[in-house]
Amino acid sequence: MRSVSIVGVGITPFGALPEGIAALAVRACRAALADAGVGPERIEAFFLGNFAGEAFTGQNHLAPVVAHGVGLGPVPCTRVEGACASAGLALRQAVMAVRSGAADIVLAGGVEKMTTAPLSETTSILAAAGDHEAEACAGATFPALFALIALRHMHEYGTPREALAEVAVKNHANGCMNPNAHMRKLITREQALDARPVAEPLGLYDCSLISDGAAAAAVCPTEMAADLHPRPVRVLASAQASGSPALQDKADITRFEATERAGREAFLEAGLNPEDVDLAEVHDCFTIAEIVALEDLGFFPKGEGGRGALEGRTALGGAMPVNTSGGLKAKGHPVGATGIAQIHEIVTQLRGEAGARQVPGAEVGLAQNMGGSGATSVVHVLSSAG
Amino acid sequence: MRSVSIVGVGITPFGALPEGIAALAVRACRAALADAGVGPERIEAFFLGNFAGEAFTGQNHLAPVVAHGVGLGPVPCTRVEGACASAGLALRQAVMAVRSGAADIVLAGGVEKMTTAPLSETTSILAAAGDHEAEACAGATFPALFALIALRHMHEYGTPREALAEVAVKNHANGCMNPNAHMRKLITREQALDARPVAEPLGLYDCSLISDGAAAAAVCPTEMAADLHPRPVRVLASAQASGSPALQDKADITRFEATERAGREAFLEAGLNPEDVDLAEVHDCFTIAEIVALEDLGFFPKGEGGRGALEGRTALGGAMPVNTSGGLKAKGHPVGATGIAQIHEIVTQLRGEAGARQVPGAEVGLAQNMGGSGATSVVHVLSSAG
Repeated sequence: MRSVSIVGVGITPFGALPEGIAALAVRACRAALADAGVGPERIEAFFLGNFAGEAFTGQNHLAPVVAHGVGLGPVPCTRVEGACASAGLALRQAVMAVRSGAADIVLAGGVEKMTTAPLSETTSILAAAGDHEAEACAGATFPALFALIALRHMHEYGTPREALAEVAVKNHANGCMNPNAHMRKLITREQALDARPVAEPLGLYDCSLISDGAAAAAVCPTEMAADLHPRPVRVLASAQASGSPALQDKADITRFEATERAGREAFLEAGLNPEDVDLAEVHDCFTIAEIVALEDLGFFPKGEGGRGALEGRTALGGAMPVNTSGGLKAKGHPVGATGIAQIHEIVTQLRGEAGARQVPGAEVGLAQNMGGSGATSVVHVLSSAG
Repeated sequence: MRSVSIVGVGITPFGALPEGIAALAVRACRAALADAGVGPERIEAFFLGNFAGEAFTGQNHLAPVVAHGVGLGPVPCTRVEGACASAGLALRQAVMAVRSGAADIVLAGGVEKMTTAPLSETTSILAAAGDHEAEACAGATFPALFALIALRHMHEYGTPREALAEVAVKNHANGCMNPNAHMRKLITREQALDARPVAEPLGLYDCSLISDGAAAAAVCPTEMAADLHPRPVRVLASAQASGSPALQDKADITRFEATERAGREAFLEAGLNPEDVDLAEVHDCFTIAEIVALEDLGFFPKGEGGRGALEGRTALGGAMPVNTSGGLKAKGHPVGATGIAQIHEIVTQLRGEAGARQVPGAEVGLAQNMGGSGATSVVHVLSSAG
C-alpha cells in the first residue's frame, strides 16, 4: 500500500448561503484543486459525501452533477453517505483508492444545503440518520437521543452540567477566530447554562448549527506530493468502524464503540498514541458528543472527558486544543461537509496557516467524524511531515 | 492487484413486498452469506447501494442499519449512491477493496423499497436522479427524457417502433421463467405497440417497473474462492465512468458516453471483446435504453441495436441472450438493488443454475448498470473460470 498525502483543501464559508447545493460543492472542489495546483483533468476519481441532498434540495445522484460543474473528466464519481460522517467516508474512499494504486490524484468533497428547508422538515430529515423503526418513527430525534446520553454520563460519572457549557464556550471562542465559521459570537458559561432548553439537559448552546456549506480535499501518493504543494500533509491513518444504530442496542450509551474501534485502529496504523496528537477536531454535534469522543479516542479516561474543557486543556493554549475551527458547534454543521471541513482545519493548522487560532508547532492532528448516534465513525490522523 | 471472485449471491423476490427496507436488504445479504458458506463475523467490509431510502421510507444512513440486522461485526459499512447504478457502484467498491488487499471477504448489497410511496411522489423521487436544476425542476421526468432519446434514435437511424416493442416482448418472455421476477406475463408485439402512451413514443410496456427488492453478493480473493464455493465466478473487469447529467450537455443523446467508456475499459481489463460474451444483463429502464446500451457496449454498430431484439439475436437461444432475468422491464427495478440483481443473474447463469432460462454453456457474462440518463455507468465482466 502506498503512503498518501493531502495536497489541496478548499472550503466555502458556512452559514445560510445563497448558492444551490451543486454550486457550493463545485466552489469547494475548485478551491481544493487550485490549492493543489492541478487542473480538473488530472483528477482520476471523485468521491462526494452528502447526507440528504434529495430531501433538502431535490437533487440526488449528486456526484456526477458536481463533477460536471467542476469540469472533471468522465472518471468514476461516487457519492457516499454515512449521515453526518458522509464526508469522512468520502475522504477515506479517496485515500484507499490512492493507497491501492487504483488512482493517483483523487478528489474528495462533502456538501449539505440545509437552510432552505422549513425547520420542522429539517428535524425529520436529520432523524433519518438514526434507526427509523426503533427511534425516529417514535419521535426520538437527535437532540433527544444525545440528551439521554448526557443524562446518563452525568449520572454515571458525575459530569457537571458546567462541563457541557464550557465545551460550548470554548468552541464559540474558537469560532470567533475562524472567518469561515457560521457563528462568530463569544458566549459566557452563564449564557450557555441559562439558554433556552432543547432537550434536558441540553440547551440551545449545546446544539450544533443548521448550516449550508461544502469542503473538499485532493489526495495523491506521498511520493508525488511535494511536486504539487510546498506543504503536503501526510495521512498517517484512515480508519472507519460501525456500531449499533439505535441506543436500545448499546450495552453502554456513554461510549460509542465505533469511535473507540476506529480510534484504536487509527493509532495502530499511525504508530502513535493519543499523547502524540497536537490538536484534534472531534464531532461535537452536541457538547456531550465532544466529551464522549475525547474519552472514546483515549484522550481522557472514561468519565473524565469533561475535564478537557473545564480545566482549559482542550482550549487554544491548552495541552491539546480541540475544535480550533469552532467545531460543529460554532463553525457550523452542514452534515455532509463536516468530515472534510474538519480535515480542512487540521491541514490548515499543520501548514501553520491558521492565523489567530494557530496551534504553535502543530505536527500531528486527528479528525473524528461520526454518523448518527454512533452507527458510523471515521478517524483520520494527519502529519505535517508531508 | 489481486484477482477477485464472487462466492455468494442472494436476492429477494421483486414486487410489492410486505417487508421494510432494512428487512429486505438483510434477507438478501443473509442469502448471499449462506450461499458463500460464511458467517457474518467473517465479513470485513460492507458496501450498500441505495438510491432514495430516506424519501421512500424515512431511513437514511442505511448501511449500518442493515449491517446490524445481518449481524456483521463493527466493520466499515458504507452506503454508496449513483441513482439506479447504486448497487453496481457498491459491488465495484467491494471488488476494489478486495483487489487492493484492504479486506478479504467483502459483502455488497443493494436495496430499494418503492411501492409504499404514492405514485406521484415516486415520479418526483426518481426525477432527483437527473439534473435537478436543468431538467427535473422543469418537469422533465425520466420517461420524458428517454422518450426524447427514443425519438432521436428513430429519427437518426430509422429505428422502428417495433424494435422497442420487441425488447419488451423478449424481456417479458424471459421474466416468465424467473421465479423472482415482479411481472411474469407474456405480451405480444401488438400489445406492446398498442399500450397506453406514457411519453411518446414510449408506451406502458416500454417502461420498467416500480418494485421493492434487494440483492447481495459476497466477494473474496480468487485464491480463497474455491474454499468457499464449489463454483466461484471470477470478476474479470469492474469499470465505472461518468457522463453529463443533463441531456442538454450531451453532443449526441443517442449514446451514453459513460457506458461507452466503462465498456471499453471493462473489455480492456478483461482482455476480451464483445464477441467473447455469452450473455449480458443491460440497463433496460426503458426499452430504448437496452438498444442504446447494446450499441454503446459494442455489441452492435451505432444505430443497429434494435436488430438484437427484432432478429431474435438477443433472445434466449439467440447468439447473445440479453436480460435473461427479465431485465428491469419484467424482473422489476427496485433502483438501488438493480446492479447486483443483474450480477445475481449472471452468476446464476455462469453456474449453470438458471433452470428454464439457462444459456447453455455460458462462460462469460457482462452486466451494465446505469444511473440517471447516463451520468453514471458501471460494467462488470464475469467468468465461470472461477
